[in-house]
Amino acid sequence: MKALYYHNGLKFVENYPKPFPKSGESLIKIIISAICNTDKEILKGYRPDFKGILGHEFVGQVVESDDPSLLGKRVVGEINEYCGHCLYCKTNRPTHCENRKVIGISGKDGAFAEYMVLKNQLLHVVPEELPSEIAIFTEPLAAALEILDQVHIRPSTNVAIIGDGRLAFMIGQVVALTGSDLTIIGKHEEKLSLFKPFARVTTNTEDTYEVVIDASGSPTGLLTAQKIVRKRGTIVVKSTYSGKVEVDMSYFVVNEITIVGSRCGPFKPALQLLKEGLIQFPPIELYGLEEYEKAFKSRAFKVGFKL
Amino acid sequence: MKALYYHNGLKFVENYPKPFPKSGESLIKIIISAICNTDKEILKGYRPDFKGILGHEFVGQVVESDDPSLLGKRVVGEINEYCGHCLYCKTNRPTHCENRKVIGISGKDGAFAEYMVLKNQLLHVVPEELPSEIAIFTEPLAAALEILDQVHIRPSTNVAIIGDGRLAFMIGQVVALTGSDLTIIGKHEEKLSLFKPFARVTTNTEDTYEVVIDASGSPTGLLTAQKIVRKRGTIVVKSTYSGKVEVDMSYFVVNEITIVGSRCGPFKPALQLLKEGLIQFPPIELYGLEEYEKAFKSRAFKVGFKL
Repeated sequence: MKALYYHNGLKFVENYPKPFPKSGESLIKIIISAICNTDKEILKGYRPDFKGILGHEFVGQVVESDDPSLLGKRVVGEINEYCGHCLYCKTNRPTHCENRKVIGISGKDGAFAEYMVLKNQLLHVVPEELPSEIAIFTEPLAAALEILDQVHIRPSTNVAIIGDGRLAFMIGQVVALTGSDLTIIGKHEEKLSLFKPFARVTTNTEDTYEVVIDASGSPTGLLTAQKIVRKRGTIVVKSTYSGKVEVDMSYFVVNEITIVGSRCGPFKPALQLLKEGLIQFPPIELYGLEEYEKAFKSRAFKVGFKL
Repeated sequence: MKALYYHNGLKFVENYPKPFPKSGESLIKIIISAICNTDKEILKGYRPDFKGILGHEFVGQVVESDDPSLLGKRVVGEINEYCGHCLYCKTNRPTHCENRKVIGISGKDGAFAEYMVLKNQLLHVVPEELPSEIAIFTEPLAAALEILDQVHIRPSTNVAIIGDGRLAFMIGQVVALTGSDLTIIGKHEEKLSLFKPFARVTTNTEDTYEVVIDASGSPTGLLTAQKIVRKRGTIVVKSTYSGKVEVDMSYFVVNEITIVGSRCGPFKPALQLLKEGLIQFPPIELYGLEEYEKAFKSRAFKVGFKL
């Protein structure tokens, strides 16, 4: 089958062996898969140990499965394949499983291919009325929703999001649903204009906020967050980057700031919000797998592959 | 009056002017005041701008007041004098008041003296049955209780405290009251023995914990906490120190760790727990003000001045 294979760089291959499902697994024919920032980081060397098919955002159709309720269905899939018996699995934290594999990132082939195999328990059926071009946003939207699973953002809370990229946009839309007073702090006027329908936008950092979400993707995000978060406020960090950052911990102690790291989130509410049309996106730009170089260079809001 | 005056070093003075209370304030005759680690940090240069009488832990008697319910009463006092009209005062965070003075630390004379003046609203009457030698622990105990105001420590949570000093002891006793599975991680076998009545004690950092409280007073505490906290767990930081610490923020994001800075806490429940005898301490070692050099050098669990 066709696939984008990563090992010290990405290449297009036409004869990658088609995977076959084991007991408890489904074979999925990919309909759409999408490029995430993590994929770009991997190409830059973020996961030197990973060797396999890249990609973890997808919509596909189940073509083989031992679960009859899944067969023939359109599905999206959670990316962390968990063991089910470690401390974290037993305490309802499967995304932190000690033995986990992450599709297209760590230990398991991903979705930039014609077919993929995934455990049945990780699959979620896409509602019929939801087009694949929108369902493809389920995984990043779930990651944005994780913030609301971790931090109680009240309607009367004032919130700032640092960043004006795709992640910030996703988080912004989710936070806007809480009714809270939302400000987006960015650097690019043209990117910020996309947020105007649901948030105040600004390039300055003069005001203070109860909750500050760092979606900047850069170490400077935390320093900006420190500057604008209120005492006893909360900083949610969504940015990952290689390297360390110098922190004045005593500032956080004296001002009783809470810092919350946030990663993958719940798929079910993400699908629900998408189905209800409560979250809107610019359309995804789609390429063939063999056009991967063009796809990775595109600066469109969301870019993916149509299989 | 006699006082310990700080300005580029501490000195004992005999003729410091006795303060007089303004409207809404009380004049307090100090009975006992106690040395806190912050006082020692100030002597090392932590607050170069502070000029005045040191000391913020005290038990005293109200000898002048426009509030008849306070007159003649034994009291302890909160250390943050707030303005009442800034953002933080108006949102129930007076300890973070933007215009605050802190007795014996910032902008206001402290308790290492015969008399002190404090706003009535900061005073708490000490129950009659509670000896001053125990009531003196109210302020540090309140700071320990702040953790439980910020983080929900469940009976079924496992908790580690890093540190075997006085702060760790105070926190340990408070956490022990939750019934949670408590481990103290220290470096000194002889100090750790003090914790054995209510906690498991260890010098190793092999196990993992849902909640880790850094009371080490050192930048290495955060690194140890990072090592032993579980994924999706919480680190409470009580340590303050000058200088910065290098942090791998992506580790906290990927593992969804929450970091909570924690400072001053609620006096009322602290007095309540002391009154009920639920918290126990080794006896305080008391000196005259003029013996301050000896007092500051003592390595007793708690050291103070008897006026």
